[in-house]
Amino acid sequence: MRKVLVVGYGTIGQRLADAVDKQGDMKLIGVVDAMPSLGLMALREKGMPYKLYSSNEDFKKDLEGKGYVISGTLEEILPSADIVLDATGAGIGAKNKEIYQKYSKKAIFQGGESNQVADVFFHGYANYEKGIGKDYLKLTSCNTTGLIRAVDCLDKAVGVEKVAITIVRRVADPGDYHRGLTNALQVDKAPSHQALDLMTIMPHVDATGILVHVPVTHGHFITVVATPKKDISVEEVKKVFESHDRIRIVKLEDGFLGNASIFKYARDLGRVRGDLYEICIWEDTIVKSGKDIMFGIHIPQESVTIPETIDGIRAALKMQDNSAEAVAETNRYLGLPSWR
Amino acid sequence: MRKVLVVGYGTIGQRLADAVDKQGDMKLIGVVDAMPSLGLMALREKGMPYKLYSSNEDFKKDLEGKGYVISGTLEEILPSADIVLDATGAGIGAKNKEIYQKYSKKAIFQGGESNQVADVFFHGYANYEKGIGKDYLKLTSCNTTGLIRAVDCLDKAVGVEKVAITIVRRVADPGDYHRGLTNALQVDKAPSHQALDLMTIMPHVDATGILVHVPVTHGHFITVVATPKKDISVEEVKKVFESHDRIRIVKLEDGFLGNASIFKYARDLGRVRGDLYEICIWEDTIVKSGKDIMFGIHIPQESVTIPETIDGIRAALKMQDNSAEAVAETNRYLGLPSWR
Amino acid sequence: MRKVLVVGYGTIGQRLADAVDKQGDMKLIGVVDAMPSLGLMALREKGMPYKLYSSNEDFKKDLEGKGYVISGTLEEILPSADIVLDATGAGIGAKNKEIYQKYSKKAIFQGGESNQVADVFFHGYANYEKGIGKDYLKLTSCNTTGLIRAVDCLDKAVGVEKVAITIVRRVADPGDYHRGLTNALQVDKAPSHQALDLMTIMPHVDATGILVHVPVTHGHFITVVATPKKDISVEEVKKVFESHDRIRIVKLEDGFLGNASIFKYARDLGRVRGDLYEICIWEDTIVKSGKDIMFGIHIPQESVTIPETIDGIRAALKMQDNSAEAVAETNRYLGLPSWR
Amino acid sequence: MRKVLVVGYGTIGQRLADAVDKQGDMKLIGVVDAMPSLGLMALREKGMPYKLYSSNEDFKKDLEGKGYVISGTLEEILPSADIVLDATGAGIGAKNKEIYQKYSKKAIFQGGESNQVADVFFHGYANYEKGIGKDYLKLTSCNTTGLIRAVDCLDKAVGVEKVAITIVRRVADPGDYHRGLTNALQVDKAPSHQALDLMTIMPHVDATGILVHVPVTHGHFITVVATPKKDISVEEVKKVFESHDRIRIVKLEDGFLGNASIFKYARDLGRVRGDLYEICIWEDTIVKSGKDIMFGIHIPQESVTIPETIDGIRAALKMQDNSAEAVAETNRYLGLPSWR
Repeated sequence: MRKVLVVGYGTIGQRLADAVDKQGDMKLIGVVDAMPSLGLMALREKGMPYKLYSSNEDFKKDLEGKGYVISGTLEEILPSADIVLDATGAGIGAKNKEIYQKYSKKAIFQGGESNQVADVFFHGYANYEKGIGKDYLKLTSCNTTGLIRAVDCLDKAVGVEKVAITIVRRVADPGDYHRGLTNALQVDKAPSHQALDLMTIMPHVDATGILVHVPVTHGHFITVVATPKKDISVEEVKKVFESHDRIRIVKLEDGFLGNASIFKYARDLGRVRGDLYEICIWEDTIVKSGKDIMFGIHIPQESVTIPETIDGIRAALKMQDNSAEAVAETNRYLGLPSWR
Repeated sequence: MRKVLVVGYGTIGQRLADAVDKQGDMKLIGVVDAMPSLGLMALREKGMPYKLYSSNEDFKKDLEGKGYVISGTLEEILPSADIVLDATGAGIGAKNKEIYQKYSKKAIFQGGESNQVADVFFHGYANYEKGIGKDYLKLTSCNTTGLIRAVDCLDKAVGVEKVAITIVRRVADPGDYHRGLTNALQVDKAPSHQALDLMTIMPHVDATGILVHVPVTHGHFITVVATPKKDISVEEVKKVFESHDRIRIVKLEDGFLGNASIFKYARDLGRVRGDLYEICIWEDTIVKSGKDIMFGIHIPQESVTIPETIDGIRAALKMQDNSAEAVAETNRYLGLPSWR
Repeated sequence: MRKVLVVGYGTIGQRLADAVDKQGDMKLIGVVDAMPSLGLMALREKGMPYKLYSSNEDFKKDLEGKGYVISGTLEEILPSADIVLDATGAGIGAKNKEIYQKYSKKAIFQGGESNQVADVFFHGYANYEKGIGKDYLKLTSCNTTGLIRAVDCLDKAVGVEKVAITIVRRVADPGDYHRGLTNALQVDKAPSHQALDLMTIMPHVDATGILVHVPVTHGHFITVVATPKKDISVEEVKKVFESHDRIRIVKLEDGFLGNASIFKYARDLGRVRGDLYEICIWEDTIVKSGKDIMFGIHIPQESVTIPETIDGIRAALKMQDNSAEAVAETNRYLGLPSWR
Repeated sequence: MRKVLVVGYGTIGQRLADAVDKQGDMKLIGVVDAMPSLGLMALREKGMPYKLYSSNEDFKKDLEGKGYVISGTLEEILPSADIVLDATGAGIGAKNKEIYQKYSKKAIFQGGESNQVADVFFHGYANYEKGIGKDYLKLTSCNTTGLIRAVDCLDKAVGVEKVAITIVRRVADPGDYHRGLTNALQVDKAPSHQALDLMTIMPHVDATGILVHVPVTHGHFITVVATPKKDISVEEVKKVFESHDRIRIVKLEDGFLGNASIFKYARDLGRVRGDLYEICIWEDTIVKSGKDIMFGIHIPQESVTIPETIDGIRAALKMQDNSAEAVAETNRYLGLPSWR
C-alpha cells in the first residue's frame, strides 16, 4: 500500500483525495491545507473522513481557532508519505517542492504549475513510460488531458499528422466568485497553450488552436480537426473512441444535448459531486472533410485530470511498468468504464 | 412499512424515490415512467436499484425496445401501493388521479398540478393537521415550500401580520434545454402566485410579492419583508431560524457568497446530486426597518419540496398525528440537521 | 431611384429599412407588418419616419385599434414597389411570395426561408453575377454570410481547397425571451448547415463544421481551418482581410477582448442600435498549422446580412453588372469602411 | 453658455459629454483622459467631435504615440472651464480635486467617489436646493439615483414613512471583462448602501434593503416596499409615476418582459448607444399589501445618472434657483419625455 499525501484541498485536491481513497493499492494518509474554506467546512460536516494537516504552525493555530481538528503540520506528516499530490494554487507548488526535496519525497504537480517544476510533463496514456521512477511529474491541464486521450488513441490506430483545435472554454467552475464572464465571449491569443502542450507530449504531431472563453460552468467543449496518416471512416473513428475506457460516446437522440446534459447525467448517476472522470464525444459530431476527421469533445474540467494523476503515482512509484497495465488498475478502482 | 410508488421519474420523481428509500418506515415498491430519458438511462447504468414500471402497455413495449427491463405497468403495481407520489408533468397528474381513484389509492401531487386535483394544499410544518387521513394532497411549489418554512417559524414565535416578498427565480434547472434566458431578467405580473399560495396555507397573513426570473440554475433567492405582531430583534430572529431543522444559517465570511457557493458546498458534502433539502438564510441579510424584519433565503429548487412530500405521506397515511412528530421522523431518516 | 418595400419589421426588417434609406439610389416606400411589437412602438415614438402598411385589412384594423396610423395594406402599396425585401419569419415568406408573384414583383428573402423559395441562393461577393436580373433571391444566413466574406477573399487571393469550421453561436438576440440557454452549451448534429451552405455558394470548396450554441447575445464566433491551394503567410492573410471593405481587423491589445468589446465599440461609435455591418477578425488568432490557415471571426448576427441584401437589390434590378461595382455602391452609402 | 469640461472618458464620461453637448445653455469645451481605450478609439473613428486633452504631459506623449491628436493637458484647459464633471475611476477624483481647487474650479463627482470629496451629496429632484452655488457636488449612484426618483415623487404626493428595497443588480456593463459572474447570484451584506444613501438624501424616510448581484448586463431591477403616510390606491400611484418626466410606465402586454426588452426598445428608438435616461416602472408590478405599496423599477445603469449630473451643473452654477425649473431645462434639452 503506497502512502499518498494530498497537499491543497481545493477543487482538484478534494477529488484527488477521494480517488486515492478508492485505489486498493494506495492509502491516503491525510490532506494538507492552509486556510478555512467551504471545502474544509464540508469535510468537517462529513465527520472528517480524512486527517487534516496544516501547511505550517501558524496556519495550524488559525484553523484550530476556527474549530478544526488538525493532526499536525505538513512537515510532520511528510516523512510518512511515499508521494505527494500537490494541488495548491499556481506558484505555491514550486515553493512546496523545496520542502518535498528536503524530505526526499516524490511529488506530482497539477497543470497550473510551471513546467520547470517537474522532470516530466506527464499523460497516463500518451507518455507513461517517461514518468517511470521519476521524482517530479507535472500533469497536463484539464483540456490537454482530455484532448490527448482522444488524439492519442486515434494516433495509435492510424497515426495523426496534425490537429487544429477550437476550445470553447468554460470560464469558471460552479461556486467560483473570483472569476466569471457575463454575456461575453473572450478570445485568447493563438495558438492556445493546449495545442503547444499537445506537441510537447506528442512531438510527432503538428498542432495549433484557438481558445474562446464562454460563460458556462459545466465543462469545456473542444472541436478537433485531425489529419490522419491513413484514411479512416467515421464508423472506425467511433469504434476507436468506444474502445477507450476513459471516453464515453454520447448521442443527441438520447438527450445528451450539451455540457449541461452530461452534468445532469453524472448527478443522476450518483457520482460524487456530479463528477465524471471520462470525457464524452458526441457521435453526432464525427464528420469528415476530405481525409480530415472532425469531432467534438466534452471535458469535465474539475475531475478529468484525476485518473491521469493516479496514473502518475503508478509511474513515479514504479507500480506498473507500462501504460496499459497502469491505466487498467486506475480504471478498475475508479469503476471505469461503468457504461459497458 | 408503508408501500410507496413514485409515478414520474423526472427531476422531482428521482429525488422522491431516493428519499422514500431512506425512510425506515417506508418501502419504495417501484418507479413508473413513460419514455426514455437521461434519468432512466442513469438508473439503468446504476444497475436498476429500483424496479421500473411503465405507464401503460404501449410505453412498456417502447421502453423494452430501448433495452429497459420493465417489471410491469402502473395498473399492475398500483394495487400493491399504500400511496402514490405523483411527480408527472403538470396536467398529467390530474389524469392519473382517475386511475388512482379506480384502485382507491391515495396520492400526493406536486406544485405544478392544479389545486383542484387535491383535497388539501399541504405544507408539513404549516398545516400538517389538515392533511391527516386525506386521500389527495398537493404540495406547495418549491419557492412557497421554502418561504413558508421561514415565515411559519417566525409566525409561531411572534406572529406575522403581513409579508412582501421579492422572488429572484432561477429560470431553469441544470440540464434544462427547453427553457432558459440569456442575459435577460423577466418580470411577472404581480402579485406572484407564491404570495397568494402562502395566504392559502396561512390565511391569517397578508402577503404580496413580485417575481423576477434570472438566468441562473442553482437555486432561487427570496427576500422577505415581514411585519411581526410583536417586536423582535435581529438576534432573536436568527435564533428562531437556527432552531429549525430544515433551515441553515449561512454567513458571507465563511465563503457562502451566493447560490453557487451553496451548490458547491452540497457537492463537497457528498450529498447525492449536490442536493440540499434545507433552505439557507444569510445571517448577513437579516435587518430591520422600524419593526419590520427583512431577510434573504436560498431555495434549492430541485430538492426543497422532498421533505414536505414525505411529511405528506405521514399525514395521509396517519403515520403521525401531529406535525412535530411527523417532521422529526422525516428529518431523522433524511439526516437533518447534519450541521449541528 | 429604385422603390423598395420592406415586409416584416422585426430584427432584420428594421435594419433593412434603415439601410435602404441610406442608399442614394434607392427609396424606401414603406414597411409592412402585421402585429404590434416593440419595434413598431419605437417607430411610432420616433414619429413614424417610414410609412407603415399592414399585411391585410384585418391586421390594419387591429393596428389602428392600438393607435397606429396605417397607410394601407400590402396589396395596396405593392404595385408601387420595384422590389420587396421580405424579412418575415420562416415560412411566411413562402406564402407572401404568391402575393409578390400576383403583382409580378421581385423579392429577396432572408436566410430562414427555405431555399426553394428563391431562384438563387445569393451572396454579394461570392456569386453576385448569378443574381443579376433574377426575380427571387435568398440571402445566406448571418453566419454563412460573414463566413463567406472571409473565405471568398482568401479564395480569390490563393484558392481555398477545403475548410473546417467551428461555430460558437450566440443563442439569442438581445431582447429575445422566446429562446435562450442558461449555463448550457448545446451541440448540433454535424455537419452544420453553414458548411453545407458554403458549398452551395462556393461549390469548388469542400467544407464541414460543428456548431455549438452558447449563452450570449452579442455575436457569433467562428473559427475557420482553411487549406489554401497555394501557401500563404500569416502576414499575407492579414493583408487580404484588411483590404476587404466589410472586414475589420481587430487586436486584443486595443481592448477588443471578445464579442462584448465589439458591441461596446459599435455603441460608442454611435452606430444605430450598436450595429456593425462588418465582421471582425482578430489579428491575434491568425495562425498556421502546416499549410493550413486558422483564424477567428466575429459575426454581428443582427446586421451582418444587411449589406449583402442591399447588394441583392442591385443584382436583381440590374443596377450594377458586377460584384465589385455593386458592393462599392452599397458600401459607400453605408459608410464602409469607416475605419481606414 | 456655461463651459463644461469632462474629465474621464469611460462609460459615464462619454455619456456626460454627449449630454452636455445637447444642452442649449452649456458648451462642452473638451474631454480629458489618460490612456488609450475603446472609447477613445471610437471618438477618433468618429472624427474627434470633441477636443481631447490628456491628464498630464506624460500621458499626452503616450496618446500622441498612439496617433491621437491631443489639444493640451488638463491644467492647460482647466482655466477655461466654469465647471468640471469628474467621471474618473473611484479614488482618482479625490486626487483631481486638488487640481480643481488650485484653479478654483467647481466640480461634480460621480457615485463611486467617497462622500468626503464633496460639499453635498446631490439629487436633482430630491435636494436640488442644497446644491445651489456649492463648489463640490457628488452624485448618488445609479441605483440610488433611480430609486430616489420614484420614492421622492411618491413622497411629494402622499409622504413616505419607510421603504424596504431589494436590488437585483446587473453585475457588469456590456463590454466589461474585468468583472462578471457566471451562473451565480452574489449576496451583499445588508443593509445595502443604496438604502443608507437614500436616508442621507431623504433623512425623513427610514430605509433598509438587500442587494443581490445577478449575471446580466442591461439594467438593475429594484423592488420597493414603501409605507406611505396616507393611503393611496394603485391607480393613484401609477398616476404619480406617469407624471414624472424621467419615469416611464411600461407594460408586459406591450412586450416589455424585462430588462432586455427595455434595452431592445432603446436601441430601436435610435437612442445613442441604446441608452435610456429614464427609469421604467412596470404597471403590472404595482401592488399593495395593507397600506404598503410595492413596485418594480428598471434602472439603466450606464445612463441614469446623466440627467441628475446635468442638474448638478445647474445647481452649482446657480443657473436655476429651484429644482422644478432646473430639471425642466435639463429634460427639454435631453428630449424628455419623448413618449407622451
